[in-house]
Amino acid sequence: MAVYTEVSDDELAAFLARYDIGGLVSCKGIAEGVENSNFLLRTETGIFILTLYEKRVNPADLPFFIGLMEHLAGAGITCPLPVKARNGEALGDLAGRKACIVTFLDGVWVKRPAVTHCRQLGTALARLHLAGRDYKMVRPNALSVASWRPLFDQSRARADEVVPGLADEIDGDLRALEAGWPSGLPTGVIHADLFVDNVFFLRDELSGLIDFYFACTDSLAYDVAICLNAWCFEPNHELNATKARAFLAAYAEVRPFTKAEVAALPMLARGAAMRFFLTRLYDWLTTPAGALVKKKDPIEYLRKTRFHRAVASAADYGLEAEGVA
Amino acid sequence: MAVYTEVSDDELAAFLARYDIGGLVSCKGIAEGVENSNFLLRTETGIFILTLYEKRVNPADLPFFIGLMEHLAGAGITCPLPVKARNGEALGDLAGRKACIVTFLDGVWVKRPAVTHCRQLGTALARLHLAGRDYKMVRPNALSVASWRPLFDQSRARADEVVPGLADEIDGDLRALEAGWPSGLPTGVIHADLFVDNVFFLRDELSGLIDFYFACTDSLAYDVAICLNAWCFEPNHELNATKARAFLAAYAEVRPFTKAEVAALPMLARGAAMRFFLTRLYDWLTTPAGALVKKKDPIEYLRKTRFHRAVASAADYGLEAEGVA
Repeated sequence: MAVYTEVSDDELAAFLARYDIGGLVSCKGIAEGVENSNFLLRTETGIFILTLYEKRVNPADLPFFIGLMEHLAGAGITCPLPVKARNGEALGDLAGRKACIVTFLDGVWVKRPAVTHCRQLGTALARLHLAGRDYKMVRPNALSVASWRPLFDQSRARADEVVPGLADEIDGDLRALEAGWPSGLPTGVIHADLFVDNVFFLRDELSGLIDFYFACTDSLAYDVAICLNAWCFEPNHELNATKARAFLAAYAEVRPFTKAEVAALPMLARGAAMRFFLTRLYDWLTTPAGALVKKKDPIEYLRKTRFHRAVASAADYGLEAEGVA
Repeated sequence: MAVYTEVSDDELAAFLARYDIGGLVSCKGIAEGVENSNFLLRTETGIFILTLYEKRVNPADLPFFIGLMEHLAGAGITCPLPVKARNGEALGDLAGRKACIVTFLDGVWVKRPAVTHCRQLGTALARLHLAGRDYKMVRPNALSVASWRPLFDQSRARADEVVPGLADEIDGDLRALEAGWPSGLPTGVIHADLFVDNVFFLRDELSGLIDFYFACTDSLAYDVAICLNAWCFEPNHELNATKARAFLAAYAEVRPFTKAEVAALPMLARGAAMRFFLTRLYDWLTTPAGALVKKKDPIEYLRKTRFHRAVASAADYGLEAEGVA
């Protein structure tokens, strides 16, 4: 569920009066998403998404996100385009929150991606990375390797409740990740959260990317690693090598990997699994039972961490030699 | 929140393939409503609502509800129209639930209705009652006076936790309601849940009625009493006589009240307040803290019960003589 903030009739009317998008026809809270409040808005001129930014989003980061969507849309990436009010501002205030109206993207996300979806994702991710290279703003990745140990410190005392011996296991992983974390790889804007629910398809053709609220500046190959984890594993927690190969090859066709990226991929994938494991573990231990947000089982990402720990080289993911620049 | 059931891509595709409404363009869970799972569906031909009926709806009642919407839409009432699959059926099976696609109604509900909204509600409710008079199916009101004592029995032991002395107070009300409950009034189809979130307006003009899943056969004036409680009280729990007068007069202009209805109105309004008090009390005591559904404070309806207990005649609601048939 994702409507945390109620908006009164008068507040909404006053907010919309700042825009040239016509009168309100319909406004429905959307049950998807977990970070912000989202409404599907119809006006006399079209369909839009109204987002109210909730407390997990730092208002200081909003210009980076809004500017990024404008930049990417301008570079031909199909993503939500922030709608400007008559005063030229895309960000406004509504019901005590920062708020923004963006264009609505057609498409549905696929709950179980097939090889064709993974292949198209690879192309789209590489295009996103190329389109983001000349974006001027910078936002450090607040959820990269340096944050993982302090994050785990908040769960360590109760970690063994979840899996016996978990605290020791994760400590070992963190030492390895901190010691071996790659640096000097090609960097730029990464989406950092391109899970299946953030990629839309229309009749099995990729139609757009949404939810740029974790986007930041980091190694491009780390974004590849996040997607590999999110798209190319089966419900039994095993890597689907066909999907991985299709995803990586399609990416490399648009933006070839450097040798250093290929060498770093197992460590990046292990770290990407750790990052989502740690936030899920924290949410698992701290979210009250029956809360509004559905808790995601951290075990899925623990298993992915273990998988990548045992990987010898990117060839295990099906990354073929011609993918290297 | 109102998405209790997850629908897989394949299930949805197979379900939609039974209809002539074009390919899927978008599908978003809607955060409003508490009884069923609702999705806002866009296809190549239009916008629809897809409803999956959850466990609080008896499947045996669905033909009554579906048939009623078809009947009312045919009689010129703006309400959702069930869309038939190619096999002629409006009801189907999806993700282990009964499911139905209905047309989408433009409009937004008003959180704080003004006099103009109450007046238009009166007109629309009377038209609804007239349009429903020749609807052939019958569904007894399962939440009428006979159900209230068994319902209260499920909360009585903990009632005094909510308000000291509450059990005795409600027992007294129930005796009075059971002894004095009106019979022999004009009956027909009533909506039975026409709260503000079920009535849409476009630029302050009433544009449609939704959510017929409590509709049943009962005294028409009982529906009037439910709306009086839901629309004509202020946040301080006092009756707004101007709104009540506008609502009742507009209703009577389309369908004049009988003398018996006017005489019965205070008892009906007291009973209508009791009915919603009792279901809210039960939910209040049984819904776990932090659950998906936002609990409604039962005290609001306890205060309305007390208000009507002290009412001498319908003149206290501003019902004027010319409203009587």
